[in-house]
Amino acid sequence: MTHTGGLSYLDAAFRAIYPQDAACRQQAEERLAQLTMPHWALGDLMDLAVDLAGMTRSLTPPLARKKVVVMVGDHGVVAEGVSHYPAEVTTQMVYNFIRGGAGINALARRAGAEVLVVDVGARDDFTDLTDVGAGLAGNCTGALIAKKIGHGTANIAQGPAMSRTHAVMAVEAGIEIAYHLAETTDVFATGEMGIGNTTPSAAIAAVFTGRSVAELTGRGTGIDDQRLRRKIEIIEQALAINKPNAKDGLDVLAKVGGFEIGAIAGLIIGAAARRKPVIVDGLIAAAGATVAVSLEPFVRDYLICGHRSAEPGHGALLEHLRRKPLLDLNLRLGEGTGAVLAMPLLDAAVAVLTEVATFAEAGVSGAG
Amino acid sequence: MTHTGGLSYLDAAFRAIYPQDAACRQQAEERLAQLTMPHWALGDLMDLAVDLAGMTRSLTPPLARKKVVVMVGDHGVVAEGVSHYPAEVTTQMVYNFIRGGAGINALARRAGAEVLVVDVGARDDFTDLTDVGAGLAGNCTGALIAKKIGHGTANIAQGPAMSRTHAVMAVEAGIEIAYHLAETTDVFATGEMGIGNTTPSAAIAAVFTGRSVAELTGRGTGIDDQRLRRKIEIIEQALAINKPNAKDGLDVLAKVGGFEIGAIAGLIIGAAARRKPVIVDGLIAAAGATVAVSLEPFVRDYLICGHRSAEPGHGALLEHLRRKPLLDLNLRLGEGTGAVLAMPLLDAAVAVLTEVATFAEAGVSGAG
Repeated sequence: MTHTGGLSYLDAAFRAIYPQDAACRQQAEERLAQLTMPHWALGDLMDLAVDLAGMTRSLTPPLARKKVVVMVGDHGVVAEGVSHYPAEVTTQMVYNFIRGGAGINALARRAGAEVLVVDVGARDDFTDLTDVGAGLAGNCTGALIAKKIGHGTANIAQGPAMSRTHAVMAVEAGIEIAYHLAETTDVFATGEMGIGNTTPSAAIAAVFTGRSVAELTGRGTGIDDQRLRRKIEIIEQALAINKPNAKDGLDVLAKVGGFEIGAIAGLIIGAAARRKPVIVDGLIAAAGATVAVSLEPFVRDYLICGHRSAEPGHGALLEHLRRKPLLDLNLRLGEGTGAVLAMPLLDAAVAVLTEVATFAEAGVSGAG
Repeated sequence: MTHTGGLSYLDAAFRAIYPQDAACRQQAEERLAQLTMPHWALGDLMDLAVDLAGMTRSLTPPLARKKVVVMVGDHGVVAEGVSHYPAEVTTQMVYNFIRGGAGINALARRAGAEVLVVDVGARDDFTDLTDVGAGLAGNCTGALIAKKIGHGTANIAQGPAMSRTHAVMAVEAGIEIAYHLAETTDVFATGEMGIGNTTPSAAIAAVFTGRSVAELTGRGTGIDDQRLRRKIEIIEQALAINKPNAKDGLDVLAKVGGFEIGAIAGLIIGAAARRKPVIVDGLIAAAGATVAVSLEPFVRDYLICGHRSAEPGHGALLEHLRRKPLLDLNLRLGEGTGAVLAMPLLDAAVAVLTEVATFAEAGVSGAG
């Protein structure tokens, strides 16, 4: 990665992003309309198949090589008591990911997806963990990708989370990882870990959707009514002090975002630039996706929203992104779990596109 | 199977059905509450894990051997013009299933599930297809299980679909198949094929939910407004002529049901008697499940509702069954597709129960 004037690396990525391929979408639609079933009887699964054909420019969209990238960052705003858990849990969970004991590990194994953990902004360092670094090697067990931009953000209740330069660096880190992985990846999923990160995410949702903080703020890891009121006040304060500009995604990210949120935005941008589908997890991932789409609207063509979480801000961001989620299972874990849970539905969509007989092939009568 | 007085085989099955195991449910809940994540952060997936533990009496519920059983039957009411497709499509689709070219084949392959096709009431015979009969052999390609009760039902707009004796036989056929398969099956899914079968299913929904036919009747394979009005009139006529007794599930099945609907009810009853989870597909499957639950309420403890279909009667039956569906993807195909699409979520639920570290195991701090 070269930094020639800050935005140039980003601009180069944006220039590489094109809308879904209209011809492949049409060919997929035509095939699906002839399958031995009532018209569009597999509903959203068929819409997904068309999207995958359009993203990958293929009528047999490849999906075998799945990767979930867990971006890790800490949040200064945890000092305000917005979370149910202490900040050291971010670090402890990184070790849990590396040992394979977390929810995302169990679900990724079932989905046939590889888990990669990236430190972009954890408070602590992980000097005892192997840095697989630029190689971004396959199995992350015992290995962490070190791309640290800072040791946790500053407290957004008192000022910006990070400088604009650091915001750009976080996004660039995500793009760089997507580029490195793209050659060995068919589909990406976004994951994250960062105690306190529903707070900046709800703030980002408020900026982009224009809805009230009270309406968008949820219980995160499970805070009680009193802490929820406190969390709402802190987010309102963060917005009042920082005045993020909704027309400038990097300004929003710098003022009320997080390092992992910027890296998620970058991963999505990099995936889109390489025409790879990217499954977006929950609230934090949607906040990152919204930043990415605000920077380059064509990015939206590569998003697959894995699920609708129990966090109210997530539903608002999904509406803003105009993407219907595949699952709705009251998940509120993050880590990428809701994204990898949706992976079998992508495989199923491709199976419908590629393996079901047409009326003509099967000798079945059409509608009377 | 012996028929000693009609109901005795059914009664023996009902006597073998017990509620979910409360101790296993509690042990599963206790384990899930200690996992390295906020309390119940994987929401419905954790509820599903508890259900699977309760059904199978195991904290490591087995799921490897998955079977979807496609029950086939025709419907005399098709003569009234209630369907978009001619009745011969039922037969043509059976050949499509056997050749592996249908939607259910493609999706079952991805889910690692075996497809078994059972003729319980098709209009036509399949003399050129191997009857795997009592052996109920593994791979159904080129083979059909022959359990025919009748060559299509009578027209419910003019009288009962079948005799009460035939209704009992249809349910018994389903139980017998479940019993035969149970030794080599960890989880069942219900499938069906039968042109016209959303009509009896909507009639069954009206009987059990008490809601209006107009509210419960959908477009099935895709009929236009005029045929939809006709379909509603026909169902209202069928209910007026037959007067099915909502307190007597066999009466409802005989008067406004279908052979495949009875066999689905039987498959579910047989699965419950063997403590096997059974994933219920769409409207027709839910109609069968409702008949089964009306006969033996403990059956409900073994139901997993795969999805909510686009058919309005399905949503009403799901409410009646008090089971939340796992998926909601605007599917309206049937065949068992919505059930096999949900299978990876069962595997995921078990992975969460069995593979995620607890706070103590991982050395992660609890909530502050």
